[in-house]
Amino acid sequence: MTTPTYDVVAIGNAIVDILAQAEDQFIADEGMTKGSMQLMFSPEEADALYGKMGPGREISGGSAANTVAGIAALGGKAGFIGQVADDQLGKVFAHDIKAAGVDFTTPARAGEPTTARCLIFVTPDGQRTMNTFLGASQYLPAEALDADMIRGAKILYLEGYLWDPEEPRAAMKRAIEIAREGETWVAFTLSDVFCIDRHGDDFRRMVEDGTIDILFANENELMALWKTDDLEAAIAKTTPEVGVLVVTRSEKGALAMYKGRRYEVAAQPVPAVIDTTGAGDLFAAGVLHALATDRPLDGALVQGAICAAEVISHYGARPEADLKALVKEKMPY
Amino acid sequence: MTTPTYDVVAIGNAIVDILAQAEDQFIADEGMTKGSMQLMFSPEEADALYGKMGPGREISGGSAANTVAGIAALGGKAGFIGQVADDQLGKVFAHDIKAAGVDFTTPARAGEPTTARCLIFVTPDGQRTMNTFLGASQYLPAEALDADMIRGAKILYLEGYLWDPEEPRAAMKRAIEIAREGETWVAFTLSDVFCIDRHGDDFRRMVEDGTIDILFANENELMALWKTDDLEAAIAKTTPEVGVLVVTRSEKGALAMYKGRRYEVAAQPVPAVIDTTGAGDLFAAGVLHALATDRPLDGALVQGAICAAEVISHYGARPEADLKALVKEKMPY
Repeated sequence: MTTPTYDVVAIGNAIVDILAQAEDQFIADEGMTKGSMQLMFSPEEADALYGKMGPGREISGGSAANTVAGIAALGGKAGFIGQVADDQLGKVFAHDIKAAGVDFTTPARAGEPTTARCLIFVTPDGQRTMNTFLGASQYLPAEALDADMIRGAKILYLEGYLWDPEEPRAAMKRAIEIAREGETWVAFTLSDVFCIDRHGDDFRRMVEDGTIDILFANENELMALWKTDDLEAAIAKTTPEVGVLVVTRSEKGALAMYKGRRYEVAAQPVPAVIDTTGAGDLFAAGVLHALATDRPLDGALVQGAICAAEVISHYGARPEADLKALVKEKMPY
Repeated sequence: MTTPTYDVVAIGNAIVDILAQAEDQFIADEGMTKGSMQLMFSPEEADALYGKMGPGREISGGSAANTVAGIAALGGKAGFIGQVADDQLGKVFAHDIKAAGVDFTTPARAGEPTTARCLIFVTPDGQRTMNTFLGASQYLPAEALDADMIRGAKILYLEGYLWDPEEPRAAMKRAIEIAREGETWVAFTLSDVFCIDRHGDDFRRMVEDGTIDILFANENELMALWKTDDLEAAIAKTTPEVGVLVVTRSEKGALAMYKGRRYEVAAQPVPAVIDTTGAGDLFAAGVLHALATDRPLDGALVQGAICAAEVISHYGARPEADLKALVKEKMPY
C-alpha cells in the first residue's frame, strides 16, 4: 500500500451543538434519560424544547466530527464526510471543522431541513443530556462519498449514531466496501445505548463477520450490544473478530483488548468536570491518532485519556487547548 | 410617577458574537487595533475575515444587550429593543435574551442583510479585538420602539455603538424624547474610542445639554471625548451636567462622580482572565441595577465590579454564573 493520505477519514452527523446549563429536575420533568442522546423528529419539537432551554452557546459538534477535529489538533491528517444544509449553522459547522484543520468537502444541501442541531443540557455534575434534530444530516447520500478520500485513509471511522437515517446508513455501508477493497481499517463507535436498541442486530453482525477492525464503546453500550449485565462476558463476545476493542469507563478510565491481551488506563485528573460532551469522541481521537501512526496500544490509551480530560474541562465537544503540546507535556514517555 | 415596570430598558445592536482564540501576531498582521471594535461594511468582508478565524463558539452579545442580560441575572426587570433578521442567528439572539429573562419583542426583519455578527479574536492575555458586521441591526426603525416600554422604565440605556447607523440613531433620539417627557433617566455608554472619533460632536452635545443622566466610559473614551490626555480634566468637563459619571479602569477598578463627590472601587480578583469581552457591559449592569433600585453609588460600583469579574473569567459576554447569588456572597454588606 502507498503511504496513506489521511490518518483518519470519518463519516458522521454534521451537527452544531447548543449547550445550556440545566438542573437535574428539568431533565426529569422533560422525561429525558440523563446522559443519553434522544432524537427529535420535527423542527417543531426541536423549537419547543429550545424554547424551554436557558441561554445557550453554539459550538460545532457531531461525534465523529469531534473525533477528527481532535486528530487534527494532535497533528494528524484527517478528513470528514457529513451533510450540512446551505444555512447559517451549516456555514458555522463547515468553518469550524476546516478551521480545525480537517478536510471537509461534502457540498451543502439546498432547502429544508436545516443543518442538524443538538440541544445539550449540562447538569451541575457536568453530565450532558442530548436531544438531536438530525435535519440535513440524515440526507447524506452515498454519492457524496469521496472514494479516493476513503481509499487514501489508514482508518475509516464511522459513528453508530448515523446508522439511524437510511441514506447515510447506505453511504456508510458503501464506504465500508471501499475500505474493504483496499487496506483501510474500519473503526466504529456504538455511540449510545438507545442507538443499540434500534440497530443492535446490524451492529452485532458487523462485529461477528469481521467488518469492524477497531470498536469503541462504553461499558453500558458494550453490555447492551450483547444484552448482558456482565462486562467481561460482553468483552469475550466481542474480541474474537474485532481487532482492537476499546471500552471507555468514564472516571474509571478505559480498557482495550488486542490479540487476547488486556490494556488499561486510568482517567486523567481534571481540576473540575465542566461538561462531559465529547469525552468519548476525544478519547477515540487520541487512540485513533496513535493507532494510525503505528504506536502501541498502551500509549494510545494514555493519549486518549489526555484528550478526553481536556474536553471535559470546558463547555463544548471540540478541543480548545493545543492537544499536541498537551500530550507532549503529559505523556509519561 | 407610578412604579416603573422595568428597571432598565436598553436599545442596542442585536449581535451574535463568534469568539475564537488568536495570537497577537494575527491581530497585528490583519491591521486591527487590539482591544477596539472595528466595523466590517460588507458580508464579503465579514466572510473573508471569518475564513481566517480559528474554530469559533457563538454566544449572543451586543453591548447593551449584554448589560440587560446581566440586570436580569441580578434579579432586575429588563427589556431590550434591537433589530435581528429572520434567520438562524436572529433566532439564537432572540432565544438567548428571552431565556436570560429579558423582555424582547422587536419583530425580526425579513430579507437581507443577515443578523449582526461580531468576530471576536481573544488573545492569550484575555483581551478581545472585535470586528462587527452590523447587518440587520443597523435597520432598527424608530417605529419599532415600544414607547410604553420606555415610559415604564426607571432607566433607558443606550449604547454609543448604535449611533453609527442612521435609522437606529433616529430611533434612539426619539427614545430620549420619550424618556424626557416622563421621568425615565437616560443612561449612555460611549462604547469605543473609534466610535467617539465618528460621533464625538453628538456625544459632547448630549453631555453638555443635560440629555444624559448617567454616563459610562472607560478612561480612554472619556479622554477621547474631550480630546485630552488628562483624565481629571475630562472628568471635570463631564460632571457639571451629567448626574452620575462612571469611569471604568480595567484592572484598576472604576470610579464614579455624583454631585461633586468621588467614589472608587477596586477590581474584583479573578483566578484567570479568559476573555474580557463584556467586562464594561457587565460593570454597567451591576451599577444600573443598583441605581434603578435606589441603592447608593458605592455599593453600585462594588456590584459592577463583581459582575465584570464574573464575565471575564470565561468566554462570552453574557453571565454564566447566578449573579444574584454571587453578589449576595461577595458584597461586603
